[in-house]
Amino acid sequence: MAAFQKPPTVSDDYRAVEIYREAANIIYEKGFDATSMGDIAEAVDLTKGGLYYYIKGKKALLYAIMDFAMNRLEAEVLEPARKEEDPELRLEILLSGHAELVIEDTSALTILVYEEEGLDEAHRPKIRQRKRAYADFLRDTIMAVLERHGRTGKIDPSMASSSVLGTIHWIVRWHKPKSRLSHEEVVDQVTELIMHGLVPLRA
Amino acid sequence: MAAFQKPPTVSDDYRAVEIYREAANIIYEKGFDATSMGDIAEAVDLTKGGLYYYIKGKKALLYAIMDFAMNRLEAEVLEPARKEEDPELRLEILLSGHAELVIEDTSALTILVYEEEGLDEAHRPKIRQRKRAYADFLRDTIMAVLERHGRTGKIDPSMASSSVLGTIHWIVRWHKPKSRLSHEEVVDQVTELIMHGLVPLRA
Repeated sequence: MAAFQKPPTVSDDYRAVEIYREAANIIYEKGFDATSMGDIAEAVDLTKGGLYYYIKGKKALLYAIMDFAMNRLEAEVLEPARKEEDPELRLEILLSGHAELVIEDTSALTILVYEEEGLDEAHRPKIRQRKRAYADFLRDTIMAVLERHGRTGKIDPSMASSSVLGTIHWIVRWHKPKSRLSHEEVVDQVTELIMHGLVPLRA
Repeated sequence: MAAFQKPPTVSDDYRAVEIYREAANIIYEKGFDATSMGDIAEAVDLTKGGLYYYIKGKKALLYAIMDFAMNRLEAEVLEPARKEEDPELRLEILLSGHAELVIEDTSALTILVYEEEGLDEAHRPKIRQRKRAYADFLRDTIMAVLERHGRTGKIDPSMASSSVLGTIHWIVRWHKPKSRLSHEEVVDQVTELIMHGLVPLRA
């Protein structure tokens, strides 16, 4: 660190989080490739030099955003689900918790899905590994549910896991902040749709 | 048309379709904004001047691709579904037919979803209107199914229609040509998942 730069402080950390949030919004709107450090500096009212005090570069910023999104997914969805022993209740925690997070923190959660290619070689495997662990846990939970209901012959757990993640991520394409349905209704209905489908089976 | 240009012939039409297909693959890979007429000319082994004999420009090409995709969706999915009176069977025709088309003609069907902004002002409303008519028919079919089973309080038909389209379009993100599951298995399983969910309700 150059002698004229002050060391990071706690308020610097808050500022950094604020910058990540704003950067995530811009990258979500424009895409990672089309976003420049200048765009981000302008949005957070810093010079480009000032921005580099907080962030080493575009790729480091992308990793910080994804790391932050993954932390939330693990802490707010995966950990509570791990504590539930019943697979159906566990699945409900995963689906509704993930849907809630996607609605609440749309930019970061969407970047986590679409912008993996922009990460540098050192960071990409770390994010991939954590996404994989999450998807595996979802798949295993789905498998337990399907086994309980004798449905493993009809639905492959891996395909169901990928498909369900898509249904959840797709929410942000049709649900807008001013929609007729509240956030809670959207979360409940998407969970209901994935859990029980549109048509009850004939007994 | 300039005097030295020959008028279009039937074999020109075939060549044009071939060009649309190849262009759709390139736009699907690179995105519409990042694709140049030069990229397309190179892929179909024409000079840029030669390519302009078949296509008036990038935006006209995009419209041709979307029009083609919409024609297939209407002829191969919507029309057969319209002939089926039972709403549950009609829904199955829509879901499985659409899933099949997305797997078989991935590039054009995906461009139809994501690249609407690239259309010019004259063409955008036409494509929007046809997409809207398709989505409305799907929504009305879902509504009839939900009403039959007393589920309209739990699931909003419009949200279900958007959500279901997402689940179908998402297939191309996890299903690759060399996947463990065959195309037919994917179509059947996604249809089953949307129809009955992971934990079926008993009628």
